[in-house]
Amino acid sequence: MVGIIMGSISDLKVMQEAVDILKEFGIDFEIDIVSAHRTPEKMVDYGKNARLRGLKVIIAGAGGAAHLPGMIASLTTLPVIGVPVKSSNSIDGWDSVLSILQMPSGVPVATVALNGARNAGILAAQIIGTSDTTVGTKLEQYKEDLKVKVAEMSLEAQKMNAPK
Amino acid sequence: MVGIIMGSISDLKVMQEAVDILKEFGIDFEIDIVSAHRTPEKMVDYGKNARLRGLKVIIAGAGGAAHLPGMIASLTTLPVIGVPVKSSNSIDGWDSVLSILQMPSGVPVATVALNGARNAGILAAQIIGTSDTTVGTKLEQYKEDLKVKVAEMSLEAQKMNAPK
Amino acid sequence: MVGIIMGSISDLKVMQEAVDILKEFGIDFEIDIVSAHRTPEKMVDYGKNARLRGLKVIIAGAGGAAHLPGMIASLTTLPVIGVPVKSSNSIDGWDSVLSILQMPSGVPVATVALNGARNAGILAAQIIGTSDTTVGTKLEQYKEDLKVKVAEMSLEAQKMNAPK
Amino acid sequence: MVGIIMGSISDLKVMQEAVDILKEFGIDFEIDIVSAHRTPEKMVDYGKNARLRGLKVIIAGAGGAAHLPGMIASLTTLPVIGVPVKSSNSIDGWDSVLSILQMPSGVPVATVALNGARNAGILAAQIIGTSDTTVGTKLEQYKEDLKVKVAEMSLEAQKMNAPK
Amino acid sequence: MVGIIMGSISDLKVMQEAVDILKEFGIDFEIDIVSAHRTPEKMVDYGKNARLRGLKVIIAGAGGAAHLPGMIASLTTLPVIGVPVKSSNSIDGWDSVLSILQMPSGVPVATVALNGARNAGILAAQIIGTSDTTVGTKLEQYKEDLKVKVAEMSLEAQKMNAPK
Amino acid sequence: MVGIIMGSISDLKVMQEAVDILKEFGIDFEIDIVSAHRTPEKMVDYGKNARLRGLKVIIAGAGGAAHLPGMIASLTTLPVIGVPVKSSNSIDGWDSVLSILQMPSGVPVATVALNGARNAGILAAQIIGTSDTTVGTKLEQYKEDLKVKVAEMSLEAQKMNAPK
Amino acid sequence: MVGIIMGSISDLKVMQEAVDILKEFGIDFEIDIVSAHRTPEKMVDYGKNARLRGLKVIIAGAGGAAHLPGMIASLTTLPVIGVPVKSSNSIDGWDSVLSILQMPSGVPVATVALNGARNAGILAAQIIGTSDTTVGTKLEQYKEDLKVKVAEMSLEAQKMNAPK
Amino acid sequence: MVGIIMGSISDLKVMQEAVDILKEFGIDFEIDIVSAHRTPEKMVDYGKNARLRGLKVIIAGAGGAAHLPGMIASLTTLPVIGVPVKSSNSIDGWDSVLSILQMPSGVPVATVALNGARNAGILAAQIIGTSDTTVGTKLEQYKEDLKVKVAEMSLEAQKMNAPK
Repeated sequence: MVGIIMGSISDLKVMQEAVDILKEFGIDFEIDIVSAHRTPEKMVDYGKNARLRGLKVIIAGAGGAAHLPGMIASLTTLPVIGVPVKSSNSIDGWDSVLSILQMPSGVPVATVALNGARNAGILAAQIIGTSDTTVGTKLEQYKEDLKVKVAEMSLEAQKMNAPK
Repeated sequence: MVGIIMGSISDLKVMQEAVDILKEFGIDFEIDIVSAHRTPEKMVDYGKNARLRGLKVIIAGAGGAAHLPGMIASLTTLPVIGVPVKSSNSIDGWDSVLSILQMPSGVPVATVALNGARNAGILAAQIIGTSDTTVGTKLEQYKEDLKVKVAEMSLEAQKMNAPK
Repeated sequence: MVGIIMGSISDLKVMQEAVDILKEFGIDFEIDIVSAHRTPEKMVDYGKNARLRGLKVIIAGAGGAAHLPGMIASLTTLPVIGVPVKSSNSIDGWDSVLSILQMPSGVPVATVALNGARNAGILAAQIIGTSDTTVGTKLEQYKEDLKVKVAEMSLEAQKMNAPK
Repeated sequence: MVGIIMGSISDLKVMQEAVDILKEFGIDFEIDIVSAHRTPEKMVDYGKNARLRGLKVIIAGAGGAAHLPGMIASLTTLPVIGVPVKSSNSIDGWDSVLSILQMPSGVPVATVALNGARNAGILAAQIIGTSDTTVGTKLEQYKEDLKVKVAEMSLEAQKMNAPK
Repeated sequence: MVGIIMGSISDLKVMQEAVDILKEFGIDFEIDIVSAHRTPEKMVDYGKNARLRGLKVIIAGAGGAAHLPGMIASLTTLPVIGVPVKSSNSIDGWDSVLSILQMPSGVPVATVALNGARNAGILAAQIIGTSDTTVGTKLEQYKEDLKVKVAEMSLEAQKMNAPK
Repeated sequence: MVGIIMGSISDLKVMQEAVDILKEFGIDFEIDIVSAHRTPEKMVDYGKNARLRGLKVIIAGAGGAAHLPGMIASLTTLPVIGVPVKSSNSIDGWDSVLSILQMPSGVPVATVALNGARNAGILAAQIIGTSDTTVGTKLEQYKEDLKVKVAEMSLEAQKMNAPK
Repeated sequence: MVGIIMGSISDLKVMQEAVDILKEFGIDFEIDIVSAHRTPEKMVDYGKNARLRGLKVIIAGAGGAAHLPGMIASLTTLPVIGVPVKSSNSIDGWDSVLSILQMPSGVPVATVALNGARNAGILAAQIIGTSDTTVGTKLEQYKEDLKVKVAEMSLEAQKMNAPK
Repeated sequence: MVGIIMGSISDLKVMQEAVDILKEFGIDFEIDIVSAHRTPEKMVDYGKNARLRGLKVIIAGAGGAAHLPGMIASLTTLPVIGVPVKSSNSIDGWDSVLSILQMPSGVPVATVALNGARNAGILAAQIIGTSDTTVGTKLEQYKEDLKVKVAEMSLEAQKMNAPK
């Protein structure tokens, strides 16, 4: 089970991609809005009970001074994947990236690209795939599908620039 | 009473300036190490009890992905002053600044300059001075002293470049 | 009484949020256009008379080479809250942020996030709340309201991703 | 088994922290120098055989235009942890961070802080800990130890500023 | 023969300018989609066989964590021209620029401006022009044409601001 | 006489503001397109003959790798005012700003804000005003007009927020 | 007469270069410490009386949130040259540069490079040289001297790499 | 024949690496100090005569507002390789990089990494190697040597972390 949390429902338009890819891989997940700054007690409960409740990985998305991923990481020993969201109050995304990535020694957050929620979902699958061979096989298939898409694009690009 | 907290004792070489200026203004303070990421429960207790324990203002210093000032602000209605510390693991201080400054709507942190602990102390005094005229008078005097120092520097600079 | 000033009426679309939240908290305020660069004498008068005129806190918003908050802070011992405005002539807001935040030792500006006028208003309320319990109570209530809003968003997000 | 690789032996002074923490947790690892730009074929072999050779997680450190973590991630379905190294040819670490973090959709790298090799090791342990309860228990203990260290620092800081 | 490759067909709207200028100079080219992260084996083949297949120069465009130009450069001794593409997942183009430009010692990429595909084409022509005088002559003519265009703009600007 | 030059007619939509303010002050000017990179010889002639032809000040606008202002400054002893233009090929204007501002010791360019062509015109007027009292008087009047505009905005802002 | 001012005597180690070059050109100057934030009234007096006291140009240096050059420009119609100083409290100089350069429309500051005090002096000489032919001639000579120095360096570099 | 030029002899400590690698490859070169800003006429001559004098490639290094590579590129149709030098007056190298890289359409500069003079030399060799098979062979050998060095580092790293 993967826990997907974010600081505001406005982050969902970015975070939905994590939901979608987990569905595609057939991995169970739950979703919740947990705000580090508006619901700190809920956040503490979420972090402390995550392992007990059976979660394996947590994906946390936030923007601006994005404290949710790092704070959750301080409250659990599960791997926490952080998604920097380029929210409307962000300075071009730099604040989101740096306040998730630059965690102090002892408390890592597995940070993905700005708005990289799909990659957060894939990374969660990879982590689960370290002990679940079904997921591992699906990841191999996903990688093959990426190649097929490139092959199709390759043909299209060559057609567009073929001598007439 | 001003509460001064920081994420690690290594921040104290920067934060000591806040201590010193509060001593100079004769304002009571307490000091503690409270780490958002290593002692999240202590942080929650600190924030929730701050007003009850009689604190008026909190000064919080942290570096890198600096979550302490913002998290404390989420746990209290006292004014929280954030000091971005240019710690050894910081990217030129940008991470410290942005993860303290860019708080979401609803939960402000009064941010001062990078390593600006002295200004954090003065700002705390100004806040206390809004209802304490003794401190207000000291602040006026402090401002006058700044002018005297500039006058002295002015003489020195002119002497150095006087025609010989 | 809170004084709200800004360098140009074009900043009002950002600064209005400070006005609105102060109204919501029932805190008196006055508003004025004071330009550091176009009306320096008015700015000096404003700063020097602020305390005498009964102001407790000043909120100053400006963009680009944003000198208004820092200059006002040099002219009064009241706490000055600076709002970096991402104005049209700004380089992605970096100039606004840095020229307000990076004040020299001795003259602090309590800086909030880029375009963070609502937080400036809340911070002003928090400062007033250090000696005014009515405002303190309203701030506690405001914090509770934030939690309710997150709870509502939480339900909405879960509904959107419920198995069909 | 964790695979630790880096682009040059000069990265080892940073990456050694990953080695040390894995030793501390009693997790098996292997170490190698694999350069994306100087030994691309070795890199391809490493990535393609990693899962078959029994690796569970790969930690890859690199600086400047740091392509090693992302390229390894393109060659395996194992989780890849990227450590941006602030090498001598780096522009303040920004190039290292961005070229590891900003991976395209489909191929994630779990990025940690600049020079954050210790956190890379802890994250690897957390990933292994999702299916290995011995490691999980050690991680809980590690978290407790962090709290004790803060408590010690707390006493020290208070002693330094105690009234004499 | 110039090889033009890019990580995705979405880069073609930028890279088309390289195609167009090579057509204008009458220089043979081929075009393909080669993704460092989705088709690493195809990329290795492309790089290793480039010289044998008769290519003289390779133009590679990519965005975000843009590894294609540098990886191709690691696989061939042909000159590789890198075009940083400001793709949708890029942080204002900084990631694209830095992950192409900041190559380690031993493996250069001739980097052009962000989205500078036309200049990549001209640079390829200049490289071919070092041993092909026909192309050299066309480049001289192209330079003359640039001057004529400026002369036309000059007249237009003066007309627009002529006294009426 | 002020010379206004720019690298491309596309810069004119920014540079027109310099033209307009000079007209307003009644200062003679001439306008031309001079490209450092496309018409280097014309640029050399322009710079070398500027003083002889009676120019007093040169205003040069350019974007991206903006070499025109600095190169003109290398070719004349007249004061050269540089206007960084945020052109379409610029990285948020940073390239324009830095390649105009950061001139080496010996060859200054008087740089104004990004897209600050109006200020370039005013600065040219100020330079001419050091020896021309008519222009000096107009500048004083211009400064007074700025104050009147702020007074008008002040009334408007107060009216908008007056109690109803 | 050129007025040279700076915010603190610690800026003098940078600003001395402006003094030295003006001495070299035989141009009168005066020097003073004027702090925007610590002596705002002195600054207002300085700016308002500058023209009356016979100054032709003002050079103002400051670091961090550097308001002195812009504020002086708001108080006089003389040309003001701003020198961004990379002071100890500056974030790599970016704050100094942006808070001097990015002045709003109506109030220009002629900004030179970070720590570019020598160029500020030369620019002041160029401004004076627009109406003083003696200074104009010295500037021509200075330009010639620069060429001689390069010729000497040229010989040295060739000697160092001559075949032995 | 490769022409190596730079703006000042102080750049030679960086640029020497280009000299050394060309010697290693047995490629003829000449070296000169050519300053865009101090010797613009020499620069124009250099650029215009480069092809006639038999140069095949030009390597130009400069720092700060680095105009030399771009200006040379405007004066010749030879490929110009630009080396951004992190000189003492540079803002962390960003000015050097951007003012070389961000050339406008029509005039490319093949930019290498900050201080990447060795790569500039290798790139020059690769360009010459497009028509000179001797050089091509040496480049293949150089690539093989890089692999051997990594193999040696690999052994060393494994020895350092071998179980004792």
